[in-house]
Amino acid sequence: MKKKSQVLVGMDCGGTNVKFAIVTPEGQLLDSKLTAVDYKEPAEKVIKKISLVFKNFIKQSAFKKIKGIGIGIAGDVDQKKGLVRFSPNLGWNNVNLSNLLSKEIPYPLLIENDANCAAWGAWWLDAKKDCKNLICLTLGTGIGGGIILNSKLYRGATGSAGEIGHMTIRYDGQPCRCGNFGCAESFVGAWGLIREAESGLKRELAPILKKILKGPPQKKIEPKSIAEAAKAGDPFCRQLWQDTGERLGSILSNCVNIFNPERIVLCGGVSKAGSLLLEPALHTLGRRAFAIPAKKVKVTVSQYDENLGVVGAALLFLEK
Amino acid sequence: MKKKSQVLVGMDCGGTNVKFAIVTPEGQLLDSKLTAVDYKEPAEKVIKKISLVFKNFIKQSAFKKIKGIGIGIAGDVDQKKGLVRFSPNLGWNNVNLSNLLSKEIPYPLLIENDANCAAWGAWWLDAKKDCKNLICLTLGTGIGGGIILNSKLYRGATGSAGEIGHMTIRYDGQPCRCGNFGCAESFVGAWGLIREAESGLKRELAPILKKILKGPPQKKIEPKSIAEAAKAGDPFCRQLWQDTGERLGSILSNCVNIFNPERIVLCGGVSKAGSLLLEPALHTLGRRAFAIPAKKVKVTVSQYDENLGVVGAALLFLEK
Repeated sequence: MKKKSQVLVGMDCGGTNVKFAIVTPEGQLLDSKLTAVDYKEPAEKVIKKISLVFKNFIKQSAFKKIKGIGIGIAGDVDQKKGLVRFSPNLGWNNVNLSNLLSKEIPYPLLIENDANCAAWGAWWLDAKKDCKNLICLTLGTGIGGGIILNSKLYRGATGSAGEIGHMTIRYDGQPCRCGNFGCAESFVGAWGLIREAESGLKRELAPILKKILKGPPQKKIEPKSIAEAAKAGDPFCRQLWQDTGERLGSILSNCVNIFNPERIVLCGGVSKAGSLLLEPALHTLGRRAFAIPAKKVKVTVSQYDENLGVVGAALLFLEK
Repeated sequence: MKKKSQVLVGMDCGGTNVKFAIVTPEGQLLDSKLTAVDYKEPAEKVIKKISLVFKNFIKQSAFKKIKGIGIGIAGDVDQKKGLVRFSPNLGWNNVNLSNLLSKEIPYPLLIENDANCAAWGAWWLDAKKDCKNLICLTLGTGIGGGIILNSKLYRGATGSAGEIGHMTIRYDGQPCRCGNFGCAESFVGAWGLIREAESGLKRELAPILKKILKGPPQKKIEPKSIAEAAKAGDPFCRQLWQDTGERLGSILSNCVNIFNPERIVLCGGVSKAGSLLLEPALHTLGRRAFAIPAKKVKVTVSQYDENLGVVGAALLFLEK
């Protein structure tokens, strides 16, 4: 890649970090940078700081021909106005990110929900040849969803579509962070999983997990350590992954019956549990969904994963 | 309407009847006919009989310029091949309806799932001016779903999309007719509603319903009589509609969070219960769905209702 070629830039605003990436129009990651952000400061100040880091990043990278910056936001955005309407993760309400950023940065900007960026990235990088309809689920702390239909990102009437993590799969289920009950993410998001594991530890039901957390080295309760405990035979953690996989299977089954997609792509920390999660999920999908669309769909875990969102954000400039 | 003008024909194949309709390109119903069909006979024989009724219907109507016949089928269809892959209602498996019908009828044919026809009809007749994304739910014996996205009927990878009635809303819920558990239609479809009412009668909890059914005149247990009992103050039936409305609210909330549509259109026998159903449904929608898309969506009961499917089938010829 010559420094004079045109590149795309992605920016992924999560709850604690901002990630930048320089990407070729073919989706190759050329350079990236992660910086911590304190969103407790006023939005204007935060955005000035982000801009400063961005300018230095671009300067040192020496790529000069930048087509534009695609920005992924964990929250509800108005793509046309460049407005972050509501982001609990960033603590932003009605922040016009486009206006504020364009004072600092002289490139075209596109703003999009972060899971929509991941879906667009998953489709562009890995599926566009033989797939028109793709659902992407980001299984992180919560669950984000992005929908590609007829080879286009589907946004809905106000740009809010794709909240598959807040699909009710048990109407009388447990409270979700969003205020609803029995949402998909309350069962399969890391926060739900961690809450269950904590309850198991409290009731002395997860001895192997307890040992793993104690260390050495000491570890956090997170999907990774819960998976490690399950693999080492912890009965509570094994059952927890079985249950979580079955709940994911209900979510996949709903996606299949509703969208009849060629592909469902999973990414994020929870998806790393591999067969602990996927075996019960795919078994449940087979039992629950209609046969013809269930046979058609291919469910995969993204290889790009950690960079999917930021690369997808950069690639927004290639959307027709 | 002059007899020489071009018209469209719709044909709606339900479990017990076939309905025909002659429709203008503007969606005006000019003439219709209903005929009983015994689907226990071999498909070839059934189709010959249907063709005969159709020919007589067209003859007496005196409309000569027929652009084509759009056919709605309760089941999974391959639109491109004109194939009915699977229809439990008609008892058909892999019946090539297009091939068999075109031996008898010399007009272009289009085959489509019946709820997709209803969705297309609902959008074309009533929403196309100011709405790009519409979800239609046919609340009959079961629940059918049809999806209009970006002003087009969305079909998915194998033409099977839109089975919103078989979206799981309680993963550990009651068995559904489809083999899954806790499907939307097991709570809100007429068969689920009737089963609950029967259980109430058996346990002597629904005295007013009991009286209404006895008559005179004697009545059947169906959404209409259950609604009549609720309106007359039957406590069991009132609670049943409250519960059914809340379940419908969960379904609507999922549609809103996933699709962010401008419109959701309800039709079919269960939707006739009016405010008994809609009040708890809309209240639940407001509580469960995200605020921005919930504020945007308009939920209505179709005025066309009984003819929506057959008119929508005819209008398939206007799809771009």
